[in-house]
Amino acid sequence: MFYDKLINAINKQNSLLCIGLDSEFEKLPVKIKQQKNPQYVFNKAIIETTADLACAYKPNTAFYEARGKDGIEDLYKTCLFIRKNYPGIVIIIDAKRADIGNTNNGYVEFVFDYLEADAITLHPYLGQEAIQPFLNRKDKGSIILCRTSNPGAGEFQDLLVGKKPFYQVIAENIVKNWNTNNNCGLVAGATSPKELSEIRAIAPNLPLLIPGIGTQGGDLEKAVRAGVDKNGSNAIINASRSVIFAGSNDDFAKKARAEAKKLKHDINKFRKN
Amino acid sequence: MFYDKLINAINKQNSLLCIGLDSEFEKLPVKIKQQKNPQYVFNKAIIETTADLACAYKPNTAFYEARGKDGIEDLYKTCLFIRKNYPGIVIIIDAKRADIGNTNNGYVEFVFDYLEADAITLHPYLGQEAIQPFLNRKDKGSIILCRTSNPGAGEFQDLLVGKKPFYQVIAENIVKNWNTNNNCGLVAGATSPKELSEIRAIAPNLPLLIPGIGTQGGDLEKAVRAGVDKNGSNAIINASRSVIFAGSNDDFAKKARAEAKKLKHDINKFRKN
Repeated sequence: MFYDKLINAINKQNSLLCIGLDSEFEKLPVKIKQQKNPQYVFNKAIIETTADLACAYKPNTAFYEARGKDGIEDLYKTCLFIRKNYPGIVIIIDAKRADIGNTNNGYVEFVFDYLEADAITLHPYLGQEAIQPFLNRKDKGSIILCRTSNPGAGEFQDLLVGKKPFYQVIAENIVKNWNTNNNCGLVAGATSPKELSEIRAIAPNLPLLIPGIGTQGGDLEKAVRAGVDKNGSNAIINASRSVIFAGSNDDFAKKARAEAKKLKHDINKFRKN
Repeated sequence: MFYDKLINAINKQNSLLCIGLDSEFEKLPVKIKQQKNPQYVFNKAIIETTADLACAYKPNTAFYEARGKDGIEDLYKTCLFIRKNYPGIVIIIDAKRADIGNTNNGYVEFVFDYLEADAITLHPYLGQEAIQPFLNRKDKGSIILCRTSNPGAGEFQDLLVGKKPFYQVIAENIVKNWNTNNNCGLVAGATSPKELSEIRAIAPNLPLLIPGIGTQGGDLEKAVRAGVDKNGSNAIINASRSVIFAGSNDDFAKKARAEAKKLKHDINKFRKN
């Protein structure tokens, strides 16, 4: 069960930090680029030095698909490595998928059966009926885009439907109707702490995946205070580039650890009081 | 240029038919399942027997990702086969992607540089600012989900923003703001001919990708009449399973051809008068 695994990981690691494995080939250290399975080799080093600091890892499929089947192999090996060595840590595939009905079965197989990940991110636009193949996987998490962290997120997400912005209607539908298997989460960007706290009010018991701190510039203190539940938990605070590319030379993993350690510490400071 | 290539393909083939290569492994003929690169072998046979009947092929990534890196290899080989042997036919990757900003570069590389396809389908929810890496590829098409063909499409797409349903607001924004490079198209399902004709009115000059005939049950005559532009063109009428799985034995390609030929003929009948 995704909810249980997440809470156990948060408690055991004493961390809300999720490390985004946005391991873009071009940005990898030169020595790693020259190896076989470069993205996997890079991720393995990052994971080995940070596994006591994070409740979750979140590879974004875009950076792996860019390399075609070779990238998919590196993504597969990355997930396998986490599952074998750190089975308590949550794997979220940031795939932002959603197709109609049975077509989604292909993505379900890819993420939940081939990669054996714990959760996937999804677009809401096609509605619950389309997304059902993901929701039906009771053991796995469906984390749905609600209010995203990009500067132009408001173009559609903030449009008023009656008196409510669209992203709130989505959050309400998910809480009321989509979450019958207790496996839904919501994406709410750290870059919009006001919207984030509104989403937390609508969904007091859902895990929130919160990207946008670090390179994207979201305020960590505001994001943590707005995003955690009444127990100071159930929020997944993601940092990607600011952690994994903290260094660019042979000491990249050491520098990633230092950045992750600082983030874990800062997040815990803000969730406590 | 995507628009030019599409119109040339429509004119040269005298066809609006797009064949959806939803080549789900489990549904392939037994003899093909046993071969190396089974999805590619299947697609190659379908393409060889239908290439004079279609303006476009549309593989949906879900069915290939389901098989991990092996499926991605089959998808790559399928696109390569079309490009080499039928370079005038349009390749649309039905990927329904969309991430934030630069992350999309990974998908751009995957679809436009690795697969070398002509167009991709995209979710609108993150807004134009996020989608810009796709739009910036002037030579390639960005076909954005507007009103989809699934039974539950209306959950969010029909919500009223002021007095307009959400899908119309999306269509308007795309026509007015997103299409500065003349490379946008819209997805509008055949299962909702009223909404389809409203989208055509908002976007008189954009290519419309129209799924939902065949297995999904959309009315072909209504879809064609509502979807074509004033010249009876610029619409991509997609059929997937009803064509590629018309037969299930050794004669599957022959049966696919018969079904595609009938569809091409019927579509042309309705676009002419």
